[in-house]
Amino acid sequence: VGVDSLTRAQLGIRNIRLIMAYDGSRYHGWQRQSNAATIQEVVERKIQVMIGEPVKLIASGRTDAGVHALNQVCNFTMRSDISLEKIKKGLNSLLPEDIFIRAADYVPLEFHARYSVKSKVYEYRVLNQEDRDIFLRNYLWHVRSPLDSRVMAKCLSLLVGRKDFSSFRSSGSGNMDPVRLLMRAEVHGPEDRLLRFVIEADGFLRHMVRNIVGSVVEAGLGRISFVGFEEILESRDRRAAGAKAPAQGLFLIGVKY
Amino acid sequence: VGVDSLTRAQLGIRNIRLIMAYDGSRYHGWQRQSNAATIQEVVERKIQVMIGEPVKLIASGRTDAGVHALNQVCNFTMRSDISLEKIKKGLNSLLPEDIFIRAADYVPLEFHARYSVKSKVYEYRVLNQEDRDIFLRNYLWHVRSPLDSRVMAKCLSLLVGRKDFSSFRSSGSGNMDPVRLLMRAEVHGPEDRLLRFVIEADGFLRHMVRNIVGSVVEAGLGRISFVGFEEILESRDRRAAGAKAPAQGLFLIGVKY
Repeated sequence: VGVDSLTRAQLGIRNIRLIMAYDGSRYHGWQRQSNAATIQEVVERKIQVMIGEPVKLIASGRTDAGVHALNQVCNFTMRSDISLEKIKKGLNSLLPEDIFIRAADYVPLEFHARYSVKSKVYEYRVLNQEDRDIFLRNYLWHVRSPLDSRVMAKCLSLLVGRKDFSSFRSSGSGNMDPVRLLMRAEVHGPEDRLLRFVIEADGFLRHMVRNIVGSVVEAGLGRISFVGFEEILESRDRRAAGAKAPAQGLFLIGVKY
Repeated sequence: VGVDSLTRAQLGIRNIRLIMAYDGSRYHGWQRQSNAATIQEVVERKIQVMIGEPVKLIASGRTDAGVHALNQVCNFTMRSDISLEKIKKGLNSLLPEDIFIRAADYVPLEFHARYSVKSKVYEYRVLNQEDRDIFLRNYLWHVRSPLDSRVMAKCLSLLVGRKDFSSFRSSGSGNMDPVRLLMRAEVHGPEDRLLRFVIEADGFLRHMVRNIVGSVVEAGLGRISFVGFEEILESRDRRAAGAKAPAQGLFLIGVKY
């Protein structure tokens, strides 16, 4: 805060952190792209309308098309002296009904929503029953056949630690280091037939959560054994793993700094 | 069942009862109309595709545009001898993702989904907090200012019994008798800031639940007193009551026969 006040005083620049929730159903993911509605683009445009300056919004990470967020963290810098309350209220009155700003705060200029991340927490929701749930259709993956939670929990526990997640990385992630520190990999429930997979890591490869859940569910269905799952992880080969779970079950639920 | 078997044997006609759930967000209500998607029309068309006969689907009652159902009850007659399991599974595979058939059963030919109704139960959901809930936006009414549940419960209790509900009937209901037997009028919660109004009656006038909830919420906000609410009911004048609550908070949750 000391540094922040100083730099603000010297440069007249403020660094604003936003915590936001969004329903990803209607969007082509977080990141700005030509010819497709993205969350970044919509929010940046509304900030600009409100403060009269162009801004670049930095998020903790991209989310893919159809993926939701309960607490996405972003930041942007501005010269405007608009109050935090006006940012929150003003943006919420301008934003469409599927994006909501939970909080707006001043943060030190050093704060960078992506580079400063310590870990991110994702939740993946699976409805495990015969019948569809029409009201939750955009917010879970519907798996009809019974899932064995015990086997799935065992598979998940294999993932905890500093590991090479090449087997659960979709192509298109470039040559990024495939080693990540995974702090948490749990399955909760079923509660009202709903299973919640919670995965926390210091970083995620492309489609990593959905690829993990896809394979874990295969194990839960008995199509992959525990040993088979272990072999998938150790193979470091994406082709060894199961199919990717669909986007609409995935929620970014928190980011730690 | 005896009569049913007899008539089925004699005439080759079966009477099928369907219990269905639907998300009303995308539809112009239940009832078939030209140039607008309705739930009746969509389901009738899919039944026809499946059994190869035109059918007329009778519901316990219409629901308006944007209103949802957890357990709407309907019936239709057919000559086809398709099994009940095939009706349920076949329809669910043909229907869009916002309509779901929970059950299909044979019922006596005398059964008529509208005329045979003893009572219907509606639930109206209100989210009472400052912040919007983006995931539930199509499934509740968002009321920001604090609501007094005790006052609302008191107002609701006035409605129970055989009463003239003219004050809570929207125009367009024709000259129907405005007297209805209301068996239940309760408010539950708040639970996670969600209030659920449950109203059961032997029949409902046009927009009756939404008009009741609109006025009860005015009382909960302190804009109408308990005595004022009593006067509204006794005035038998729609113009005396508060504004109609929006459609998307309303669910038909059950029908009793």
